[in-house]
Amino acid sequence: MTRTELIQQIKRKKSFLCVGLDTDINKIPQHLLAEEDPIYAFNKAIIEATEDLCVAYKPNIAFYESYGVKGWRSLQKTWEALPKNCLSIADAKRGDIGNTSRMYAKAFFDQSVSGMSFDSITIAPYMGKDSVTPFLDFESKWAIVLALTSNEGSLDFQNFVNSSGKQLFEEVIDKVNNWGSIENLMYVVGATRGEGFTKIREHAPDHFLLVPGVGAQGGSLQDVCKYGMNKDCGLLVNSTRGIIYASNGSDFVERAREEAIKLQKEMEIELERAGII
Amino acid sequence: MTRTELIQQIKRKKSFLCVGLDTDINKIPQHLLAEEDPIYAFNKAIIEATEDLCVAYKPNIAFYESYGVKGWRSLQKTWEALPKNCLSIADAKRGDIGNTSRMYAKAFFDQSVSGMSFDSITIAPYMGKDSVTPFLDFESKWAIVLALTSNEGSLDFQNFVNSSGKQLFEEVIDKVNNWGSIENLMYVVGATRGEGFTKIREHAPDHFLLVPGVGAQGGSLQDVCKYGMNKDCGLLVNSTRGIIYASNGSDFVERAREEAIKLQKEMEIELERAGII
Repeated sequence: MTRTELIQQIKRKKSFLCVGLDTDINKIPQHLLAEEDPIYAFNKAIIEATEDLCVAYKPNIAFYESYGVKGWRSLQKTWEALPKNCLSIADAKRGDIGNTSRMYAKAFFDQSVSGMSFDSITIAPYMGKDSVTPFLDFESKWAIVLALTSNEGSLDFQNFVNSSGKQLFEEVIDKVNNWGSIENLMYVVGATRGEGFTKIREHAPDHFLLVPGVGAQGGSLQDVCKYGMNKDCGLLVNSTRGIIYASNGSDFVERAREEAIKLQKEMEIELERAGII
Repeated sequence: MTRTELIQQIKRKKSFLCVGLDTDINKIPQHLLAEEDPIYAFNKAIIEATEDLCVAYKPNIAFYESYGVKGWRSLQKTWEALPKNCLSIADAKRGDIGNTSRMYAKAFFDQSVSGMSFDSITIAPYMGKDSVTPFLDFESKWAIVLALTSNEGSLDFQNFVNSSGKQLFEEVIDKVNNWGSIENLMYVVGATRGEGFTKIREHAPDHFLLVPGVGAQGGSLQDVCKYGMNKDCGLLVNSTRGIIYASNGSDFVERAREEAIKLQKEMEIELERAGII
């Protein structure tokens, strides 16, 4: 999916919602356990309930990988069920030396090799340029590089600061910017520090940002928009638990849809406020 | 495998060799392509040819993952074929927020969930403490954290330096040291800068180091030992291409063994020189 197509979908759906598919067999409704592949059955139901309200889906690869071969089968079926008008994000946090990153790129981008072709993948930048660039060689695919995350340990290294006062996450954005463009690079920026977006936007004014941490993790959608939105929206705000685990009963589909509608409506207001729609 | 057991194996085999299983279907002998699972068949033959000469095997997960479901099946069969007297290393470079790292830990450590139970996994530290500690909750398992790698882009961020002159890789080691012990933490340190080990040993005098980059990537075993060996050896030196692709003909098993013997003999000399055996 190209940047232009993504922006079109945002305007059409009046939404920049990404639904996280961190599907945990211990948290899904009991009645699905009778299905042949409960994880896939759950995902399919969630996708059908939300696809008109969101512009991206983000399966968290760890949740599939933890079940080994069987989990990868659920992942592949989930990928096949993702609607083509949504950006598919393999939340994999991969990154290794050049020849190995090329293999990871095949795993998530090259259907002829792996059976799957996501639009994008999240990338850990620690190993530098040759760990990132192999993902940028695929047309209309995206590398979404970790910059400033929202987890408990995020500041252990990401705010390591040099003698000029520059923090590591700023150095990451400045260097990675040179390896691709706003057409194939995004950054992960956690929602839990709204004002942090001001600094991010100094380094990446035009890039899309993938923003986890709204809702269950405590981030405010309004703050994220206030400090992070740009003229093309430039945000994909993820919600996982608030939507997919809104209920673990037989009404999980309806409840997931209700929660997605709430977020879509809030996003519509923000898009209108910014004059984007 | 515990630290004591690992040291026992090193002394018994007079070797601290790790054989990398970066098995590429395009590089293995043609005649194996007739096998039902050529990648597994290749790995099994390499393992049988080298298991008395090395103390660790390191499948590079990307090379399996690139084939999707089928690749994970080859990985599981390869894991099953690894000898129990060798440390098994899932070279996966994983790392994510706490609840997700816990899922990755299940994928590689918890056989009851994933079907596999490696002794150790390589970890990318960018996301901080909660991305690393879930791997330390498993008894006799190891987290092998990226510190200073040997690839082309390794210095893009790893030598980002603070106002006291401390580099990011030093900060990583100092902080990560506090999250575990020499019984469950190792570091990845590339072989291509022998003298770099002096600095590493200032921060991690007693930890084992996993060392890629000897051979094909240009690192010198002698320099690695001169600057990096400690009283327990403290090194696992990896070789991949030099061994597994020594030949791509029908003699690949014999040639792999010859190359492994050469390295084992060099390692025996170093272990004797250091008074470890």
